[in-house]
Amino acid sequence: MNLHMIESAAERLRGHARMTPLLSSPFLDEIAGRRVFVKPECLQHTGSFKFRGAWSALSAMPEEQRKNGVIAFSSGNHAQGVALAASRHGVPAVIIMPEDAPALKIANTRALGAEVVLYDRATGNREEIGAALAADRGLTLVKPYDEPQVIAGQGTTGLEIAVQARAEGIETADVLVCCGGGGLTSGIALALEGHAPGMRARPVEPAGFDDVARSLAAGEILRNPALSGSICDAIVTPQPGAITFPIMQRLCGAGIAVTDDECLRAVALAFLRLKIVLEPGGAAALAAALFHPDTIQGDAVIAVGSGGNIDPAMFARALETLDT
Amino acid sequence: MNLHMIESAAERLRGHARMTPLLSSPFLDEIAGRRVFVKPECLQHTGSFKFRGAWSALSAMPEEQRKNGVIAFSSGNHAQGVALAASRHGVPAVIIMPEDAPALKIANTRALGAEVVLYDRATGNREEIGAALAADRGLTLVKPYDEPQVIAGQGTTGLEIAVQARAEGIETADVLVCCGGGGLTSGIALALEGHAPGMRARPVEPAGFDDVARSLAAGEILRNPALSGSICDAIVTPQPGAITFPIMQRLCGAGIAVTDDECLRAVALAFLRLKIVLEPGGAAALAAALFHPDTIQGDAVIAVGSGGNIDPAMFARALETLDT
Repeated sequence: MNLHMIESAAERLRGHARMTPLLSSPFLDEIAGRRVFVKPECLQHTGSFKFRGAWSALSAMPEEQRKNGVIAFSSGNHAQGVALAASRHGVPAVIIMPEDAPALKIANTRALGAEVVLYDRATGNREEIGAALAADRGLTLVKPYDEPQVIAGQGTTGLEIAVQARAEGIETADVLVCCGGGGLTSGIALALEGHAPGMRARPVEPAGFDDVARSLAAGEILRNPALSGSICDAIVTPQPGAITFPIMQRLCGAGIAVTDDECLRAVALAFLRLKIVLEPGGAAALAAALFHPDTIQGDAVIAVGSGGNIDPAMFARALETLDT
Repeated sequence: MNLHMIESAAERLRGHARMTPLLSSPFLDEIAGRRVFVKPECLQHTGSFKFRGAWSALSAMPEEQRKNGVIAFSSGNHAQGVALAASRHGVPAVIIMPEDAPALKIANTRALGAEVVLYDRATGNREEIGAALAADRGLTLVKPYDEPQVIAGQGTTGLEIAVQARAEGIETADVLVCCGGGGLTSGIALALEGHAPGMRARPVEPAGFDDVARSLAAGEILRNPALSGSICDAIVTPQPGAITFPIMQRLCGAGIAVTDDECLRAVALAFLRLKIVLEPGGAAALAAALFHPDTIQGDAVIAVGSGGNIDPAMFARALETLDT
């Protein structure tokens, strides 16, 4: 896993993934007490950065392997990213989802061209179901984060940040990244090491689910005590990845934990001031930039808005946090 | 008023206005029955395309004139665009607003550095108040649309559309533009004439306030019978401009009128599928693309999402139109 793989992924993504802009607002700067920039990956295809990693993984496969199709376990953003990337490569995608996944997510994933296979969380084992399907059809598993070509794809976000921040006159800054298993965070960290050495990636997680922050502090991989109970479901994972953790350990600054309420307020402020739609987990980094200014260095900060797949009811709840 | 002025404005806007991306979603394509692209000017500074025209006007003034400051009449997007453009030029801005304007809009305009002068709609005359202030302080009036350098600034949106559409393989398409006085529409029409001759700008207006569509059909300037009663307040103006109308007459296709309900549904679909925030008037063009497919030519359509300054309560109302 190295910078060259990220640069190669960027070549493969060109004309397929979107170059998202870098947004800002004087109103957010005032709240944070420094210049705040947001990289809105909610504007990426399928509404999250996950399309980058999925496209990178599919486009890196030998044609003989890819043509049989891919398989992924996900009820969320990774599922949609893999489904669209496979569809645009003209190959099949099978997505394994729990049968109690939200109907909208199942419908969206199907509409993006994937075959959705449902399993019962209580009685089924998704790995066994997936392994049997993969063996039967010659499908390749696309892991959500602990996979070099997926990390390379997510890291292209960091290449863009390096160029766009420089255009704003920024050479040094903390780059806050909404962090689950660490694919996006480690990819961005590697990209910044090579292209913007004055910048430092820092993982942001939900309070109570800050396995990466605690693992970085402890110097070893620690698990989350629970996996449910946060509205930031998109970035709750059991533990840091075996590939992503050593990269984060070498390159990242300390993690930051944010509350559900802070994420909802960040969702509302992104609506009001940037005119973008973020999901709670996708707003975690912005929440840290706005509401944890004392933990951040420098006169500018960059927050990745990693995804925008939020239910209307949750969005309405976020809007209620506004004073207006 | 010509293409060269738009190209010059683009030079002056470089590094100051945002190059907004061109967004799309397979889900919107399915609704419209053709490929739909959205140019999200809600992501522009101050949340609407108005910053382009304001920057163009201010940057085109001789320094001796500009340093005294500018004045504008507006309670909406033009006010915020002028306020920020003046502030970033380091010159004063005075914005004349009715005293019953929403408190949030007054506060936002002040926070962007402008002096807000309130007047009583019943007893005051804003032109007289403005003329007295302008004479007293040497301020230059920045009109919202019927002003060549403002049209030139708005037209830079069209230059970007020409390049971005070509990158998507599109040479011919209707370009639907949310239309008030016609500054954005005429500017884009001129830009497309020069840089994408296979594309045609078409104004989109609220039903019942479609003065531009009726004027184009009649071949003469007609007025709206009323100026209130639409939720698309950002694009309701008394009549087409004296400068903008002849340009639209020469270059634009027929206008399209959309209902308030269609605009609200377009706001909701832009939230769900593009992860952007549009105001009702800023979603009019997308509403036409999605819900009036029979009035549109070709296998692709481009809709300008002209602004995103919507109250949370109105946005929540739009979200209620979703089935989910």
